[in-house]
Amino acid sequence: MTSDATFALMRELHQTGPGKILLLVMDGLGGLPLEPGGLTELETAHTPNLDRLAAEGICGLAEPVGPGITPGSGPGHLALFGYDPLRYTIGRGILEACGIGFPLEPGDIALRGNFCTVDPQTGAITDRRAGRIPTEVNARLTAKLRKIQLPDVQVFVEPVKEYRFVLVLRGEGLRPELSETDPQRLGAAPLPVEPLVPEAQRTADLLNQWLAEARRLLADEHPANMVTLRGAARDPGLPKMGEVYGLRAAAIATYPMYRGLARLVGMDVLPTGETLEDEVATLKAHWEAYDFFYFHVKKTDSAGEDGDFTRKVRVIEEVDALLPEMLALGPQVVIVTGDHSTPALLRSHSWHPVPTLLWSRHCRADGVRQFGETACAGGALGRFPSKDLMPLALANALRLNKFGA
Amino acid sequence: MTSDATFALMRELHQTGPGKILLLVMDGLGGLPLEPGGLTELETAHTPNLDRLAAEGICGLAEPVGPGITPGSGPGHLALFGYDPLRYTIGRGILEACGIGFPLEPGDIALRGNFCTVDPQTGAITDRRAGRIPTEVNARLTAKLRKIQLPDVQVFVEPVKEYRFVLVLRGEGLRPELSETDPQRLGAAPLPVEPLVPEAQRTADLLNQWLAEARRLLADEHPANMVTLRGAARDPGLPKMGEVYGLRAAAIATYPMYRGLARLVGMDVLPTGETLEDEVATLKAHWEAYDFFYFHVKKTDSAGEDGDFTRKVRVIEEVDALLPEMLALGPQVVIVTGDHSTPALLRSHSWHPVPTLLWSRHCRADGVRQFGETACAGGALGRFPSKDLMPLALANALRLNKFGA
Repeated sequence: MTSDATFALMRELHQTGPGKILLLVMDGLGGLPLEPGGLTELETAHTPNLDRLAAEGICGLAEPVGPGITPGSGPGHLALFGYDPLRYTIGRGILEACGIGFPLEPGDIALRGNFCTVDPQTGAITDRRAGRIPTEVNARLTAKLRKIQLPDVQVFVEPVKEYRFVLVLRGEGLRPELSETDPQRLGAAPLPVEPLVPEAQRTADLLNQWLAEARRLLADEHPANMVTLRGAARDPGLPKMGEVYGLRAAAIATYPMYRGLARLVGMDVLPTGETLEDEVATLKAHWEAYDFFYFHVKKTDSAGEDGDFTRKVRVIEEVDALLPEMLALGPQVVIVTGDHSTPALLRSHSWHPVPTLLWSRHCRADGVRQFGETACAGGALGRFPSKDLMPLALANALRLNKFGA
Repeated sequence: MTSDATFALMRELHQTGPGKILLLVMDGLGGLPLEPGGLTELETAHTPNLDRLAAEGICGLAEPVGPGITPGSGPGHLALFGYDPLRYTIGRGILEACGIGFPLEPGDIALRGNFCTVDPQTGAITDRRAGRIPTEVNARLTAKLRKIQLPDVQVFVEPVKEYRFVLVLRGEGLRPELSETDPQRLGAAPLPVEPLVPEAQRTADLLNQWLAEARRLLADEHPANMVTLRGAARDPGLPKMGEVYGLRAAAIATYPMYRGLARLVGMDVLPTGETLEDEVATLKAHWEAYDFFYFHVKKTDSAGEDGDFTRKVRVIEEVDALLPEMLALGPQVVIVTGDHSTPALLRSHSWHPVPTLLWSRHCRADGVRQFGETACAGGALGRFPSKDLMPLALANALRLNKFGA
């Protein structure tokens, strides 16, 4: 079913009800064994609570984008929220801007900026992340960059974390079809912004003018004496979850990008702390006010990206230990999944489908008894598109009417 | 594959042959355990014959519309006949008219009517089904209503069963985009017909005029002293199974709606009695004359809707006991499935995929040994769209040529 057809059905069929839905996303959950024939991170972890949910629930392997396709965090999450990630795309700049709560307006062009280090003589990049400068240094430098003015457009520069910032241009006729300036390797100088369509020439010129000013203003700084720009994008104007599903939806996530994603699909983003315990406390505090909670766990992915199999196992076990507290709130539907796989073996996102369980009183349990990749492959959900999860969640919460007479 | 693409292939590839196909539809077949961890209705039933077919056949879970979508009988059956239920939709009025064999003409507007009881003073509905009046009373009352005349259109009023009738308007420029008059609750008066598009204003006016006359004619009747109208629709002009699949197709069903559905896709609807045994006798009597039989069992669904787990089990066992007689006729392909699930636990249609078996000499049997939800989840058909069954049936009947050189 196309995403448009699904959304049309959801709009037509959704009804209100008391059942609450908890979507627990362990970022990069899926893994691989370190040795052929071994266990994955999830299979290695001691997870009595997840195993119980799997036994009482229905399991499968979720494919965020398609067979063989490794998803970025944007497509991976959009699919979990029910959006076809090939139909709906979000530029990196928009993600970053939303993540810091920047009040975007229609037509704004947002870019992700990185502070970097360049050789003062040759201009070649020597550190693409400027030694991961502290966020406070970032704030001082972005304040400096705010002095740059451009003809006929407003310019906003906002710090994110460490070496990352957001640049937003606001004005008439701006276009996001622009090349990136990061050469993606050391020893090369930052590239100029090139228009990818003729209509984007003026926007490219403005950005190159801004970059020249930035180089001059940062010349005496160290290590952050230059910037790169990437991911120029406009707000894609996604349908909102409240309108599509009839849900009051809230997001609990510690990292800016995931908060930004949630905001783009119309969720309320709840203030929370840095730890898993903070996130659970936030869930409890807002339980009555919402129908749907997106609960994001970042550290499974970070451990996978670092190639740290053992740490990923430990994070999964920490989440498992917190589950009873979350279940005690009485969700009608619980989904546990990931936005993609991040096997420690590969130190990166991967294309492998994501072990997934859906638990509810009405789910019709299958024979899966353990939450793990191999067990989920035998579950009744089979290998399925991640975007099917939202309709299934609504159905299991008894929030969908019958289709047709 | 889209429905249009599938139909194009079927038209191109179908060939004649001796193999007959039996599509046995147990309405609302899929179920749920009453207690978590228990057995479903089908799993509880003693079904040696279905189990043998499952063991020799290929099994899976059929999804009529899409994940999480609870199908009405129309979409559920269209999918089984190979029609994408999102691409092809049928209004309730058309279903009812076909069900009683009313000879619809292009442009006719058909509506489902219900006799109801209203408070003579306030006009408020006190019984939406007029105490389920006997069909004979219905026939007398519809004869009375036939006296109502409208300007420039022909009006037909035909009894269905108990409190239900069909109203058909025939004339130029009629439109089906009309609101329903049943307020769907007691204590409220029937609503007027409202046009949903401006072009339907005249049709709405005609129907409101008809309703005023009906109220007057029925004023002295009890309990059926008023009517409600719903599901205004025109014949959707579906492709016919004979043309698409090259099959001489026949339907054996006791309830009007299913007979109507079969007629809409071009099946011959065979006269039959009220019992399962009558239906089997009809199958035998017409075996030589057709290539494809749609055999409908209603009572599985009725038991589920009544929340009667035990009765649903018994109906399944009754069907199982009749299977050997049907198999003795020598079908080349047997499919056993449902148009949707109707778990007694939920007392309604549900979104759960439907246990399905396809048996033929050439099906390539899987490891499933029992016909039930959990066993089918492990079958080689996996979780699949119901509309895939017709191409599989034709292939297994050796009625499809090769595609491409």
